[in-house]
Amino acid sequence: MYNVALLGAGRIGLVHAVNIVNHPETTLYSVADPYEPNAKKMAEKYGCKIQTIEEVMADPNVHAVLIASATDTHADLIELSARAGKTIFCEKPIHLDMARVKECLKVVEEYNVPLFIGFNRRYDPQFRQVKERLQQGQIGKPESLIIISRDPSPPPAAYVKVSGGLFRDMAIHDFDMARFIMGEDPVSVYASGSCLVNPEIGEAGDIDTAFVVMRFPSGAMATISNTRRSGYGYDQRLELHGEKGVLTAKNIYEDSVELWTDEGCKYAKPEFFFLQRYDAAYKAEWEHFVDILNGKAKPATTGIDGMQALYLADKALESLQTGKEVKL
Amino acid sequence: MYNVALLGAGRIGLVHAVNIVNHPETTLYSVADPYEPNAKKMAEKYGCKIQTIEEVMADPNVHAVLIASATDTHADLIELSARAGKTIFCEKPIHLDMARVKECLKVVEEYNVPLFIGFNRRYDPQFRQVKERLQQGQIGKPESLIIISRDPSPPPAAYVKVSGGLFRDMAIHDFDMARFIMGEDPVSVYASGSCLVNPEIGEAGDIDTAFVVMRFPSGAMATISNTRRSGYGYDQRLELHGEKGVLTAKNIYEDSVELWTDEGCKYAKPEFFFLQRYDAAYKAEWEHFVDILNGKAKPATTGIDGMQALYLADKALESLQTGKEVKL
Amino acid sequence: MYNVALLGAGRIGLVHAVNIVNHPETTLYSVADPYEPNAKKMAEKYGCKIQTIEEVMADPNVHAVLIASATDTHADLIELSARAGKTIFCEKPIHLDMARVKECLKVVEEYNVPLFIGFNRRYDPQFRQVKERLQQGQIGKPESLIIISRDPSPPPAAYVKVSGGLFRDMAIHDFDMARFIMGEDPVSVYASGSCLVNPEIGEAGDIDTAFVVMRFPSGAMATISNTRRSGYGYDQRLELHGEKGVLTAKNIYEDSVELWTDEGCKYAKPEFFFLQRYDAAYKAEWEHFVDILNGKAKPATTGIDGMQALYLADKALESLQTGKEVKL
Amino acid sequence: MYNVALLGAGRIGLVHAVNIVNHPETTLYSVADPYEPNAKKMAEKYGCKIQTIEEVMADPNVHAVLIASATDTHADLIELSARAGKTIFCEKPIHLDMARVKECLKVVEEYNVPLFIGFNRRYDPQFRQVKERLQQGQIGKPESLIIISRDPSPPPAAYVKVSGGLFRDMAIHDFDMARFIMGEDPVSVYASGSCLVNPEIGEAGDIDTAFVVMRFPSGAMATISNTRRSGYGYDQRLELHGEKGVLTAKNIYEDSVELWTDEGCKYAKPEFFFLQRYDAAYKAEWEHFVDILNGKAKPATTGIDGMQALYLADKALESLQTGKEVKL
Repeated sequence: MYNVALLGAGRIGLVHAVNIVNHPETTLYSVADPYEPNAKKMAEKYGCKIQTIEEVMADPNVHAVLIASATDTHADLIELSARAGKTIFCEKPIHLDMARVKECLKVVEEYNVPLFIGFNRRYDPQFRQVKERLQQGQIGKPESLIIISRDPSPPPAAYVKVSGGLFRDMAIHDFDMARFIMGEDPVSVYASGSCLVNPEIGEAGDIDTAFVVMRFPSGAMATISNTRRSGYGYDQRLELHGEKGVLTAKNIYEDSVELWTDEGCKYAKPEFFFLQRYDAAYKAEWEHFVDILNGKAKPATTGIDGMQALYLADKALESLQTGKEVKL
Repeated sequence: MYNVALLGAGRIGLVHAVNIVNHPETTLYSVADPYEPNAKKMAEKYGCKIQTIEEVMADPNVHAVLIASATDTHADLIELSARAGKTIFCEKPIHLDMARVKECLKVVEEYNVPLFIGFNRRYDPQFRQVKERLQQGQIGKPESLIIISRDPSPPPAAYVKVSGGLFRDMAIHDFDMARFIMGEDPVSVYASGSCLVNPEIGEAGDIDTAFVVMRFPSGAMATISNTRRSGYGYDQRLELHGEKGVLTAKNIYEDSVELWTDEGCKYAKPEFFFLQRYDAAYKAEWEHFVDILNGKAKPATTGIDGMQALYLADKALESLQTGKEVKL
Repeated sequence: MYNVALLGAGRIGLVHAVNIVNHPETTLYSVADPYEPNAKKMAEKYGCKIQTIEEVMADPNVHAVLIASATDTHADLIELSARAGKTIFCEKPIHLDMARVKECLKVVEEYNVPLFIGFNRRYDPQFRQVKERLQQGQIGKPESLIIISRDPSPPPAAYVKVSGGLFRDMAIHDFDMARFIMGEDPVSVYASGSCLVNPEIGEAGDIDTAFVVMRFPSGAMATISNTRRSGYGYDQRLELHGEKGVLTAKNIYEDSVELWTDEGCKYAKPEFFFLQRYDAAYKAEWEHFVDILNGKAKPATTGIDGMQALYLADKALESLQTGKEVKL
Repeated sequence: MYNVALLGAGRIGLVHAVNIVNHPETTLYSVADPYEPNAKKMAEKYGCKIQTIEEVMADPNVHAVLIASATDTHADLIELSARAGKTIFCEKPIHLDMARVKECLKVVEEYNVPLFIGFNRRYDPQFRQVKERLQQGQIGKPESLIIISRDPSPPPAAYVKVSGGLFRDMAIHDFDMARFIMGEDPVSVYASGSCLVNPEIGEAGDIDTAFVVMRFPSGAMATISNTRRSGYGYDQRLELHGEKGVLTAKNIYEDSVELWTDEGCKYAKPEFFFLQRYDAAYKAEWEHFVDILNGKAKPATTGIDGMQALYLADKALESLQTGKEVKL
C-alpha cells in the first residue's frame, strides 16, 4: 500500500483524491493546501492528515506526492519532492517559463526520482485507441492529423492573465496530443490567432481562438483548432488520416437518446467539460502511476514531454507574433 | 451509516458489493453464501464478516439485506428478512411461481418492511431520460413502443432448464420496462417464439427468439423483440412513438472511434453485456435504495412490480402455447 | 423504342411519366384519364396523345400500359390490357377484393401477358442491399425482421373510407416487404391496432396505428409497426436480425448538416414522403419493366405477389377482429 | 428555349449535357470538341449538331456556351464568346496564369456579357444550407471554418504536371468555398504541404497533401485539409464554428445500410467522387445559369470569383515556398 500526499486540494485535487482512495494499492495519507478550508474539507471527507509541505517532505511514510497546486508552485514542489526522494505525479505544466522548467528537470535527474506529468488526455480510452490502431497498421503511415479542442466557455479574464496564455494553458494539451499520436517531434510550427470571444481576453494580451499547423520530419502535418468557447460543451475530437484511411475519435455524448419531431432530430451535447469527459482518463492515469510506484512501469509522460509541449507553445506564440512559420 | 448483509456472493452480488462499499452511507457488513469460497473471497476483499442466514436475521446491526442468491431462494429470504424487520433489496424475480410470489408479498405486507425489487434497467440513464422526456410532453401521448432486447450469446441449456424460460428469465425485464415507460398495465398480450439459436434450448422446452405484442388501456401498444444471441454484443434499445414524434434510446458503444477505409466505415460494438451497459444503472439503483433506508423515498419498484412482470411473462407463455392473444 | 400508354394522370402517374420520358428506350405515347384536366396537362407537358381506354387498347402502337388510375379500376384495366396483348405495369393493389383479384389473374394467365405489380419499395436501393447482403451470407440465416413504416400525416377520413383500410392500403407494402426479405410466405399472422391519430378514422371503421407479427415456416418471425402519422416525416426503416448479426436500413435524411448549440445537436428529418424517399426506387422499377419489355427479364413482382400481400392484409384484419393469431 | 453550344465533350461535358437536355428551357444545340470521337458520341446520343468553334461563334442561334474544354483553352474561348455576345458558363479555372485571367476578364467587361464560373460546390445543397443557416443567425458570427477536401485517389503524375499544382487545381475549390462561406476575402494565407502519396508527384514539382490557414478581416480564420488520396472515397466536409455553436456538413454516403456483427458496426463509404457527390450541385448550377439567361439573376459566381480563388492558390504556393504567412 502506497501513501500519497496530495499537494493542492482544489477542483483537480478532488478528482485525483477519489482515484487515490478507490485504488486498492494507494491510500490518501495526507493533504497540504495553503488555503486551509480546502485542506480541512478533504481531510474530513477522506479521513486523511493535514500536513504542511515541510511535513510532507520530512515524513518517511509518504511514498508519493501528487502535485495539483497552483501552476507557479509546480517546479518548486517537484524539486522539493525530488530532494526528499518521493515519487512524483505532477499536473501539467511544470512551469510557464522554459528556463525554470529546465532547471527543475536537472534536479529531478540529479535525484533520480520518477516524475510523471499528468497529460491526462493520453489516457483517454478514445485517443488511446487511435494511437493503438495506428500502431497496428489499420491506416498505414500517418499523414495528417486534425485536433479539435474547444472549451465550453471562456475562463475569467483575471485567470487568463496568469494562465500563460491560450497556447501554454490550453493548447499545451493538444501539442502533447500531436506528439503522442504522431510519435515524433515537429520540425516547424505556425500559428494564427484572434480574440473573438471576449475583448477582455484581448486586453489581457491573449487570444481565444487559434489555428496551429505543425510539420513533422516524415512530412506528415498536424493542425489544431482551439477556441475558449464552443457554445455546445467540451468538444474534444481528433481525426488522423493515413495511407489507407482515417481513424477518428468522436465526442462522447451526455446520453444516447434521440428525439425526432417536426423540427428534425435532436441529440445530446458532448459531455460538459474535462471532469466528465476525462473521468476514465484520470482513472487510467492513476493506474499507470501505481505501476510506476510498483516498479512495473516507467513514466510514460515525463518531464521531457512537459518541456516539449511548453516549447511548442512558446514557438507557436513566436509564430503568432511574427507571422512566420518557426523552424524547430 | 447503514450495515448491509449481502445474501449471495456470485457475479451479481459482486456488482452490488462495489456499490455498497463505495456509497458514503452504506457499509458491507457481512456476506452469506452457501458456497463457502464465494463468501470467503468477498469477506477478504472487503473486510466484511461471514454470516449464516440465521445470523444475519438475528443480528440487530444488520439494517438491510441485499438478496442476490439463486432465484429459487428469493421468496424464502424475503420472508425471513421481512419477519426480521430488515429493509430488503431483492434481485428480480421474487419467484418463478406466481402463487409463491403472492404468498411472499403477503408476508412483506404483514411485517410492513420496505421491499425494493432490482429492475435495474429502470435506473439506466438512457431509458430514464425517455420516461422523463415523455412526462415533460416532448412527444405528447405515447402510442407505440418498440423494445429491442438481445443478449450477446445464449446461456447453457442446463441454465435454461432452471431459468423459468425466456419470458420469465429474460423478457421479464422488458415487460417491466414496458410498464415503466407506458405508465399503465397492459390489457392483452400476444407472443410468438421460436428456437433458432440452439436446438438444446428447444429440447429443454424453451424458446430463444420471441416477439411480444401488448395492448394498453389507452389503445397504445408495445412490442418486444428478444433473442438469446445477438451476434454483436448486448443490444438494448427502445423507441417510443407518440403524438408528436419519437424518443429513442440507442445503444452505448464500446468506444467512439471510427475507422474509414476502402471497406467503408467501421464503428465499435455495443457494450458487451449487462455488467458494462448497466453499470450506471446499478449505481443509481443503490442510491435509490439508500434513499429508502433514509426514509427519503419509498421503493419505486416494489413487490407488485415484480409480480406484474411475472404475470405478463406467464401470460405471454400462455399466448405462445395457445396461439391466442390473452386478455388480462 | 417502346410506346407506353399511361392510364391515370394523377400524382403517381406523374412520377412514372418522368421516368418513361427519361428512359432512352421508352416513349410516353399517350395518356388516358377520365378527369380531362389531368390528361390535358400531361399531354401538354410531354407532347403525348390523349386517348380513351378503348383507343389505347385498340392502338397497335401501344406496346405497354402503366396503370396508375383509381384503385377500383385496376383489375378491369388489367383484364382489358391482357386481352389487348399489352405488357402491363400496374400500381398496387390489383383490387381490394380477393375474389376479384383471383378472377383478374386468371385472365392474365389465359392471355399470357407479362404483368408487373409496382411494389416500389422492393426497388429501393437500401432495402435491396439488405436483401442482397442477406443472400451473400453477411448475417447467416434470417431470424427476426422489424419493419417500421410510418406515414408523415394521416389521409383525410374520406380517403380512409375507400382505401380498404390500413392493412390493405398502407401495410400491404410492408407485407410485401416481409415476403421479399424473408424469401418465404408466412404461416401465421397476428395483428393489433388502434385508432389514436384521428377519431374520424375510427368512425370510418379503420385503425391508424398497428403492430403485426408474422411467423415463417423456418421459425423466423417478422413484426411491422405502422402509424398514419409519424410527426417527423416519412419513416421507412427495417432491421433484419440473423445468425451472425443485423442488417439495418436506416432513413435517408433531407440533408447532412448538423447544428450543435447549447440545446444539443440538431439534424434533419427523414425525407418527407414517398415521392422523395422512393424516387430512386421508381426509376429502378421502370428500368426493370423495360427489361421485361425487352424480354431480358420476367416480372420480379407478379400478380401472385399482389395477391399474397392482399391475402396477408385480409388475414391481419381477421386477426385484429378476432384477437387470435390466424394460421395461413 | 435557349440553345446551348457545349465546348468540350469529355467527362465533365457529359455531366452538363444531361442537365442541359433535361432542363425544360434549354436545348443542347451543338457540340464542339477538337477530339472528333467525343463530339460524335455526344451528337449521336443527344441528336445535336457538331460545330467548329468558329461556327458556334458565328451562329446566331447559339444563345449560350458551356466551356468544358481543356483548362488552357478556357480564357481564349471566354474571349471569343464574349466578342460573339454569347452568355458564358465556364468551368473553373479561367486560366492558370493570373495575368491571362485579368486580360480575359477585361474583354468580358468590355463586351458586357454575363460570365458564370462553375464553382459547383457552392450549389451543393449541403454547403448551401450551412451558408443559409449562418445567414439566418443559427450560430451567430462565424469564427473558424474547417474544410476537409480529399480526393479518393491521385491523378496520374502526367496530369499533375499540367494541372497547375494542387493549390490551383484542387484546393481552388476550397479557396472559393472559404470565400463563399465567410462572405469576405482573407487578409493572409499560410500553407504547408508534402508529397506523401506518390513520389512521382513530388518529382513533377507538386505536393499531394496540404494544410492551409487563412485569416479574414473580422479575425475569423479558416483551415483547409487536402489530400489527393483519401483511401475511402471522396471526402467533402466542412465545419463552421461561430459564436453560438457549429454548423457542420457531413459526407453523403453510398447507402444507409448498417451491418452489425461480432466485428462491430459497418457502414458505407462516402459517395465515390465528384460526379456522384455533386450531381445535385451540377443540376442546381444549371438552374441558376438558366435564370441568368432569363434575366432573372446575375451570375452568383463571376470572373472575379474565379480570379480571387486563383489568387489565393498562387499566394498559398508562395507561402509554401517561403515558409511565411503571406499578407494579401
